[in-house]
Amino acid sequence: MLVNRSNKRKQPPEQVSELTTNRLSVYLRCLNELDAAGIQTISSQGLATQFHLNAAQIRKDLAYFGEFGVRGVGYYVKELRRHLRKILGLDRRLRVVIIGAGNLGLALADYPGFRQEGFEIVGLFDAANEKIGHESRGGVPIHDIKALRSVAARERLDIAVIAVPAPHAQPVADLVVAAGIKAILNFSPGALVIPEGVKLKSVDLTVSLESLSFYLAQGDLDA
Amino acid sequence: MLVNRSNKRKQPPEQVSELTTNRLSVYLRCLNELDAAGIQTISSQGLATQFHLNAAQIRKDLAYFGEFGVRGVGYYVKELRRHLRKILGLDRRLRVVIIGAGNLGLALADYPGFRQEGFEIVGLFDAANEKIGHESRGGVPIHDIKALRSVAARERLDIAVIAVPAPHAQPVADLVVAAGIKAILNFSPGALVIPEGVKLKSVDLTVSLESLSFYLAQGDLDA
Repeated sequence: MLVNRSNKRKQPPEQVSELTTNRLSVYLRCLNELDAAGIQTISSQGLATQFHLNAAQIRKDLAYFGEFGVRGVGYYVKELRRHLRKILGLDRRLRVVIIGAGNLGLALADYPGFRQEGFEIVGLFDAANEKIGHESRGGVPIHDIKALRSVAARERLDIAVIAVPAPHAQPVADLVVAAGIKAILNFSPGALVIPEGVKLKSVDLTVSLESLSFYLAQGDLDA
Repeated sequence: MLVNRSNKRKQPPEQVSELTTNRLSVYLRCLNELDAAGIQTISSQGLATQFHLNAAQIRKDLAYFGEFGVRGVGYYVKELRRHLRKILGLDRRLRVVIIGAGNLGLALADYPGFRQEGFEIVGLFDAANEKIGHESRGGVPIHDIKALRSVAARERLDIAVIAVPAPHAQPVADLVVAAGIKAILNFSPGALVIPEGVKLKSVDLTVSLESLSFYLAQGDLDA
């Protein structure tokens, strides 16, 4: 029996936590793999077993956005994948700029995972004259940071990735906000002040290592 | 009046969430800055105002580990910094290896933030013959991944960073576990299967971008 598979929202998106959307990203990655392997349907339990996830959690997360499962069948892989891409806003190409053409910025510019999901790395921006006009190994051009505002005025830029040394992060964030970009992924350590209406997500690499350090220190205490 | 400043634990460390330890890392970063600027004492409110944090949260987080504040004074910067470094296990040098000498691995190897906090990047490991024997721009040597186990047997390795393409991540994680390394920071997409007693932390760069994409898509719906 087919159940209602409309993707009518049950709750306003404001109530969907970032942990939920992070898990949707993970499910999407799994569905991509299944689709590439020619798998057409999968149950929440099958998805959980194959990718080391939690079946009840999968059902709960998806239930926020509609009823995608078919009783006795599970999920249609291609269909659920399309729904998740739409929910995550990936049904259009997202245009990304990276500020800071240092090691990390260059690595991010050429990171194959971004392109696979439909993110388009439009360009790198830097303040160093010896970098401007060159490009990353993968061919992403490096522009003058001073040109950010005019580039943003000319073409739509969705996300700015900040990968500059800590002291430059806030001034760069101010430039990004002034250029009208509404979403920032920040790799620089420290808190940034961002006006309402701009979404900030931070990835602090040192914090990640330190949480492992904490775990190791506890292990030593227990031993 | 001096209050008791012993750092006797009030709760077993098992109950301290990763969000708490992540915040401790952020506080440590702030204290480093204050110390470098020659500031000797600061209140939780001062810390909160200066670094855009929450004063009540700071007091609550620190209370897990002892009473560090002095009434009428606040925190002694150097002392709290030393306590936090100890709690986070940073009072000894942590030896880190990076598996995967691609763009991301090379960028991480030379990332200045790691060294500042006392992490020692011992080496990069890769399977590609043309990379083995070379080094990163910053001088981190690239070893044969086959040598990981013997290096680990010879010297203490605390943390392995995995920065390899997705299909290689699980076999590499298995090698890391077999080498006796107890903490993994994984940058490859997808879930890894890790035995109990090994701590895994994952940074999925695509998931981070997709949570911004989700936010932008909601914004479009609202508009």
